[in-house]
Amino acid sequence: MITAKARAVDGPDKTFRAAEIKRRDLDSHDVLIEIKYAGICHSDIHTAHGEWGEVNYPLVPGHEIAGIVTAVGPNVTKYKVDDRVGVGCMVDSCGECENCCNGEEQYCLKGKVDTYAGVDKYGEPTQGGYSTHIVVPEDFVLRIPDNIELDAAAPLLCAGITTYSPLNHWGAGPGKKVAIVGMGGLGHMAVKIAHAMGAEVTVLSQTLNKKEDGLRFGGDHYYATNDPETFNNLAGSFDLIINTVSAKIDINAYFSLLTLDGTLVNVGAPAEPLSVQVFALSSLRRSFAASMIGGIRETQEMLDFCAKHNIVPGIEVISADQIDEAYERVLASDVKYRFVIDISTM
Amino acid sequence: MITAKARAVDGPDKTFRAAEIKRRDLDSHDVLIEIKYAGICHSDIHTAHGEWGEVNYPLVPGHEIAGIVTAVGPNVTKYKVDDRVGVGCMVDSCGECENCCNGEEQYCLKGKVDTYAGVDKYGEPTQGGYSTHIVVPEDFVLRIPDNIELDAAAPLLCAGITTYSPLNHWGAGPGKKVAIVGMGGLGHMAVKIAHAMGAEVTVLSQTLNKKEDGLRFGGDHYYATNDPETFNNLAGSFDLIINTVSAKIDINAYFSLLTLDGTLVNVGAPAEPLSVQVFALSSLRRSFAASMIGGIRETQEMLDFCAKHNIVPGIEVISADQIDEAYERVLASDVKYRFVIDISTM
Repeated sequence: MITAKARAVDGPDKTFRAAEIKRRDLDSHDVLIEIKYAGICHSDIHTAHGEWGEVNYPLVPGHEIAGIVTAVGPNVTKYKVDDRVGVGCMVDSCGECENCCNGEEQYCLKGKVDTYAGVDKYGEPTQGGYSTHIVVPEDFVLRIPDNIELDAAAPLLCAGITTYSPLNHWGAGPGKKVAIVGMGGLGHMAVKIAHAMGAEVTVLSQTLNKKEDGLRFGGDHYYATNDPETFNNLAGSFDLIINTVSAKIDINAYFSLLTLDGTLVNVGAPAEPLSVQVFALSSLRRSFAASMIGGIRETQEMLDFCAKHNIVPGIEVISADQIDEAYERVLASDVKYRFVIDISTM
Repeated sequence: MITAKARAVDGPDKTFRAAEIKRRDLDSHDVLIEIKYAGICHSDIHTAHGEWGEVNYPLVPGHEIAGIVTAVGPNVTKYKVDDRVGVGCMVDSCGECENCCNGEEQYCLKGKVDTYAGVDKYGEPTQGGYSTHIVVPEDFVLRIPDNIELDAAAPLLCAGITTYSPLNHWGAGPGKKVAIVGMGGLGHMAVKIAHAMGAEVTVLSQTLNKKEDGLRFGGDHYYATNDPETFNNLAGSFDLIINTVSAKIDINAYFSLLTLDGTLVNVGAPAEPLSVQVFALSSLRRSFAASMIGGIRETQEMLDFCAKHNIVPGIEVISADQIDEAYERVLASDVKYRFVIDISTM
């Protein structure tokens, strides 16, 4: 067993504390990673606060992981010591179901193993990236391209793939009008990726506060959703809308912005149900869809795409002692655009 | 002006009465139709009862119309006297917008003209098919194939196209597993059409009362949704679900029956919003869509498809005096499967 230093939370209302956790000895296909950076995702906060269902505390969150391989199991073929690697939201899946066989492990029919707050095939609870080391089967390890720094790479493992996958699946590209709702951790990545894919990109943010950033990131247009005129002016405009906002919003107002056969894809995950007016969909045969991260093959494709197009998230690197403060700032939307924990401070 | 006999309703709580309405003199591209049969659609009831917004009474409903051409305007080229024809849910559109030009007049960006409770290009309120005559531009008139009787043809103009269009658009066919929710006027047509398209068809009805009919209509499987085991047994099964139920249902339970990338299409139109759990969609990248009738070209295609495959609705022909009673029976789901008014009794 390997002992790793970590930051853990003991309950929905608790603050983070230093902890030691055990990582299993390497199985034949396992990779031991020394974690260098871990991003803070809104999901970490939802889970730590117990908002997405019961949690077995103590919990070590973190599923935006970047580091260096320090050991490999005897049958590992994909990675070697010193490789620069990443781990995202899942660390295993059944490998046998139709979806796994099609490279859609995130939709594993037996249930993927979440990087934290999950249970692995050994029956042990999984613990995430707010820690110095992690052991992951090689099939769930990603290669980080050389021209992406490890601190900037970390958020790509969740925020990057969560936005890349639906943009890719629903065909964002030249000739397509794509709107991105929200300019947070997910939203700012979606703007960069959709622009690099060749789509005409419109940012829909509550206010115009981040307009300069949005246009710099590749947005062609930027509108404030607190201005009712926005909804009148843009009615029926978009082929695809990626909604990155996880708060409960008036989703019907956003449906009205879709053109015939347009699709709104939710990548945020509101805890409360959304109230959908069927007329808002049927009036132009619109679709409301939702997706979760992406498969491993697609995640590697995303990393390579970002490397090719020089896409990295906007990050603010913090020390391990600043996690609680960072959570508060995320909840107040006071981050440009992703906090990343420097694990060397742990 | 042409005087037509009709049945009209004077308010949300009123019963039908005999009335006389005016039909305009034929414009150059107009067709005068002597109506032989008019189907009773659930939309007629919603509209007559004022449940879908304010209505200008007196109202003559009816948008499932079959009859015979008795006169044509001077520039009509598509139809001649004695032709067997139908009229559906719309009688005009702008003809110039992108959607009209693509044969999707039902999604006209300037607003299609509804067959009743609409306003036509002359500024006059439209009145529907519970009447002896109607005047319609030739581009909104359909040809009824010779081997379909006029009484059975009437419901195809709404119930037929409303189900054919999404089955066609979302690719129901060989290798696809399609579920039809509801075995009413729309649902029983959806079963017949999906079967004729070559899909494997499952009927999901509240009870097993209509099972024999459902299997006879082409269903391969039939389950009762009042049995919770149905939802467990069929989880993740279907590529496409057509929900024909316009009452508010637990839509999330139906999402759980979709496979990866499956789509549930609502063709009923609940007045109340539906409560959508985003997790029920994101867990397998599912889509929730809704559609309205179909375009004129597609409606003709549907009529020809039904003629080729000998598909007709189950109908119960009633006299004009029985409309109120028929409405009550529709609301009690006591009809197999569509009431059709014999207009000669008017």
